[in-house]
Amino acid sequence: MNPKIRKVRQIVEKMLSCSAHDMEHVTRVYNLSLHLAKNERGIDLEVLKLAALLHDIARVKEDADGSGKTDHAVLGAEKAGKILRKLGYPKTKVERVTRCILSHRFRGGHKTESREAKILFDADKIDAIGCVGLARAFAIAGQYGEKFYSDLPVGEYARENVAENGRIRDISKHSPNLEFELKFRHVPKRLHTGGAKKIARQRLAFMERFFERMGKEIKGEL
Amino acid sequence: MNPKIRKVRQIVEKMLSCSAHDMEHVTRVYNLSLHLAKNERGIDLEVLKLAALLHDIARVKEDADGSGKTDHAVLGAEKAGKILRKLGYPKTKVERVTRCILSHRFRGGHKTESREAKILFDADKIDAIGCVGLARAFAIAGQYGEKFYSDLPVGEYARENVAENGRIRDISKHSPNLEFELKFRHVPKRLHTGGAKKIARQRLAFMERFFERMGKEIKGEL
Repeated sequence: MNPKIRKVRQIVEKMLSCSAHDMEHVTRVYNLSLHLAKNERGIDLEVLKLAALLHDIARVKEDADGSGKTDHAVLGAEKAGKILRKLGYPKTKVERVTRCILSHRFRGGHKTESREAKILFDADKIDAIGCVGLARAFAIAGQYGEKFYSDLPVGEYARENVAENGRIRDISKHSPNLEFELKFRHVPKRLHTGGAKKIARQRLAFMERFFERMGKEIKGEL
Repeated sequence: MNPKIRKVRQIVEKMLSCSAHDMEHVTRVYNLSLHLAKNERGIDLEVLKLAALLHDIARVKEDADGSGKTDHAVLGAEKAGKILRKLGYPKTKVERVTRCILSHRFRGGHKTESREAKILFDADKIDAIGCVGLARAFAIAGQYGEKFYSDLPVGEYARENVAENGRIRDISKHSPNLEFELKFRHVPKRLHTGGAKKIARQRLAFMERFFERMGKEIKGEL
């Protein structure tokens, strides 16, 4: 890691210090992005590294706000721009990084244009699935009092507990295996790069085996 | 489920209503106990069912107390005795159930004497491992701000962060994979029944695969 990129990492660590999981997520997305870049041509690695490190710097603000008005992709791009200009990065570089951050959000509405933006988007989405995705889902279940497992058929559950805008009506009826059926299963078709799609399919297959096993354990069979 | 046992279940559900995960745990231990009983001879299923349903009724009190003085096995046995006497269960039956509850705790110091007590102990310990154990460990990580994964060698970690009485000094350095190395790995040798040991070994093997995979995902390799 070159000194300037290390400096960016330190800034991000400070900004996310109240949220250990976010910095772990950032580090995983950074590693994944570099891994995905190996299969792609003409990647500006500096842009990709900076975008991966900075992509969630406004996440704490969005979560704290709670009104739904703060978009951490928009605000994060702004903040990242300021940080990078201060560190003396040239204008074109700063712009390429901030565009990646702007378009990394699932429901953000900003299109991923550059190759680096597509890789960042893919790495961020992959980090919601696989073993890491399971860990994140159960951590959330612990924090918000979700069930660990539900054997409600997902169609029935969705009719009763998911509003049209995707909001969960009663969080105590939600569970990681329902989240898997409703959301994680659909990750691969949203991805851009072939490498990411392949990893996503493998990770989903593992999650599927996990929940199958878990269902049997709960019935006392395994 | 006969009407009286169903009544016991309703009482337990009410007592654990502030803690959804505890009731899910109780249900899994109930199912596991019945599964383990199939391989054993001369089991009083009524005693086992009642003990499984009632074994954690004082857990909420122990957690809320926090002083370390309340032992939920001792207090739970007392409370269970009262409930069962009120429901008209004969004295010998009540005693057999309360002895199971008294001895179900890992560090309780009360010996498991009856076959039913051994099965309850085993089922309760098995529920801390496998997919369910992973779910519980990550839920706790989410609640207490642990890391999701640590690549510190477990010996080094234990020297620095685990006190002689087993207390973790700095919870933010703890993680489910370290918990696995420090504690879960040693579950099988504490179990009594052959059936439980077999299940425990299978569950540990799955956990091991899980953490191996997770380590690779975090490095961005999978």
